[in-house]
Amino acid sequence: MLLYLLADIMSEILIIATTNRTNSKTYQFAEYYRQLLLEQHGHTDILNLADLPTDFAFSALYENSGKNPVFNTQKALMDAAEKFVFIVPEYNGSFPGVLKTFIDGLGWPNSLAGKKAALVGISDGNLGGAHALSHLTDILHYLGCNVLSRLVRVPVMKKNFAEGKLQDDFVTQLVALQVKELLDF
Amino acid sequence: MLLYLLADIMSEILIIATTNRTNSKTYQFAEYYRQLLLEQHGHTDILNLADLPTDFAFSALYENSGKNPVFNTQKALMDAAEKFVFIVPEYNGSFPGVLKTFIDGLGWPNSLAGKKAALVGISDGNLGGAHALSHLTDILHYLGCNVLSRLVRVPVMKKNFAEGKLQDDFVTQLVALQVKELLDF
Amino acid sequence: MLLYLLADIMSEILIIATTNRTNSKTYQFAEYYRQLLLEQHGHTDILNLADLPTDFAFSALYENSGKNPVFNTQKALMDAAEKFVFIVPEYNGSFPGVLKTFIDGLGWPNSLAGKKAALVGISDGNLGGAHALSHLTDILHYLGCNVLSRLVRVPVMKKNFAEGKLQDDFVTQLVALQVKELLDF
Amino acid sequence: MLLYLLADIMSEILIIATTNRTNSKTYQFAEYYRQLLLEQHGHTDILNLADLPTDFAFSALYENSGKNPVFNTQKALMDAAEKFVFIVPEYNGSFPGVLKTFIDGLGWPNSLAGKKAALVGISDGNLGGAHALSHLTDILHYLGCNVLSRLVRVPVMKKNFAEGKLQDDFVTQLVALQVKELLDF
Repeated sequence: MLLYLLADIMSEILIIATTNRTNSKTYQFAEYYRQLLLEQHGHTDILNLADLPTDFAFSALYENSGKNPVFNTQKALMDAAEKFVFIVPEYNGSFPGVLKTFIDGLGWPNSLAGKKAALVGISDGNLGGAHALSHLTDILHYLGCNVLSRLVRVPVMKKNFAEGKLQDDFVTQLVALQVKELLDF
Repeated sequence: MLLYLLADIMSEILIIATTNRTNSKTYQFAEYYRQLLLEQHGHTDILNLADLPTDFAFSALYENSGKNPVFNTQKALMDAAEKFVFIVPEYNGSFPGVLKTFIDGLGWPNSLAGKKAALVGISDGNLGGAHALSHLTDILHYLGCNVLSRLVRVPVMKKNFAEGKLQDDFVTQLVALQVKELLDF
Repeated sequence: MLLYLLADIMSEILIIATTNRTNSKTYQFAEYYRQLLLEQHGHTDILNLADLPTDFAFSALYENSGKNPVFNTQKALMDAAEKFVFIVPEYNGSFPGVLKTFIDGLGWPNSLAGKKAALVGISDGNLGGAHALSHLTDILHYLGCNVLSRLVRVPVMKKNFAEGKLQDDFVTQLVALQVKELLDF
Repeated sequence: MLLYLLADIMSEILIIATTNRTNSKTYQFAEYYRQLLLEQHGHTDILNLADLPTDFAFSALYENSGKNPVFNTQKALMDAAEKFVFIVPEYNGSFPGVLKTFIDGLGWPNSLAGKKAALVGISDGNLGGAHALSHLTDILHYLGCNVLSRLVRVPVMKKNFAEGKLQDDFVTQLVALQVKELLDF
């Protein structure tokens, strides 16, 4: 009973699939990461930016802040979570623009303030989103969200991620370490 | 007549107001910058990201690339220009997400490849978009767009920009140097 | 007695004055920060990079790693500490080169791995070392050192820091919050 | 005769091997790059930071600026050059500290102001100095030095660079394009 209650107050971890592309590798990776987290932590959900309202950049920002009910629901997921895992595909040398627009819609004080995040970069090419994670770190620091120093970069996704899981032993170990460190963070 | 012909082959400079906020200070600054450029260079237009189709992040990217006629017109402006001025407000420690989403929609090879850009950061606070310009530089370099080293940062916009023009002599001189260097770049 | 023992096992915090300039404002700021920390935490020292051996870039790196006794003593201070405060003056748009050379001399696994850091940027100009702190964060993350999201930037040092202490109320509050958060980190 | 005179006024290109490690791969790469440049441009030299005075961080900076004759000679090479190629090994997630210390010793206005640079990152690991080049770009922009957008990253040096030349066709093509673009920059 006590354990049950403790479980109930366990902090929520929200994994964000940070592209609005449908049926993305990013979302598949988020599902994979969720399975790893669930082995040790019951409260883990995924927010898929592909589910954002198509006009949210206009209907949920600036003078329309708070007025889009679907976006409000997604923001509520952000507000409820204590820790985040960002799965970030590399688009044009950085993160997908839609991720930053989503963050811009979260208002101030931001839903990320005072919280903690782990970052994973994925790419078809060799960099594994190196710049994407660096830029995102600057933004999360600005918002007051602590970033776990262990950044995971998964380059050459076609080779390294197949059949719904990582194929490379070294990267698999890095992710396992990141999961452990995020739970202790 | 000769002058007319020369004018005709002058490279097009496109100023981009990089937020989709309506009636933005960013757009006002773009108008101000355009006046400065027009004193020396006839072919100068503004692209205001507030004019993007409201659902462009979904209707003009990925499997819908090329299918949104309004976005296609905006992309055509990008394709036609040889030089760019990005007026970049600081949002959450970087540039507005909508700017990156717009770039993500330009496809590959990108409309910015092999071209040149000058960057201006503006902010209510003290940084003048320092990180925004650094992140954008990484992205433009990735796309093969050369960035003028003279970055202009305008902090404390409320004080420094009023009645449609810069109020600070030092920043005004920086902008004048940037304009000159962009024309020679 | 119990309190004494608890104090004894308190983690060591090391403040690093990250320039080798003698009689630097950076060192003065480190002294100021140390006083603030000592009010709440007994184990606080300063490492002043002005005390590095003058030829350490050659006599303590690469094939000479471990061979410079003075550098070894300084490295031992790093090894013993659990948390760090980097006081970083802005030099040429980033941190002083000597800071990175010092880090390059710490070997691998690095003395910073698995530890925690708070960053303070100081500058004569307006940026307060914004890029310096961003670059340093990338490096600390690479080394496995978690960075507190609350970065403190102190611009216009001549105005904001006089008679050995901060003169600006807002920045003073930021530093107080950073101290508190570092102790809880 | 005219050709001779033209050659004489050709701008000097200085390749900088940006580590002070002796017998470095970085210097070997600089030699390789020099051969490529010499095929098209007669005025190309190498500055090897391994030749810096061992105590230059103390004897050539701050109150000792201008007082170290060997450093002054090296600074004179920088002053004379119009274009630069930085060969940058990845050390601890960025460039070697000694490169930034060298830049810190160049004074103000800096020897790089108003000039142009191409950047090459090399690494044993997978990133090819991605962050190193990004950080260096911020610094060069601060100093007023334009950076060619085509950054070359050479990861896994052990495989990609052997017997004094690049072994990978794709990277070899990138370097050839960079050389061409630097000459036209």
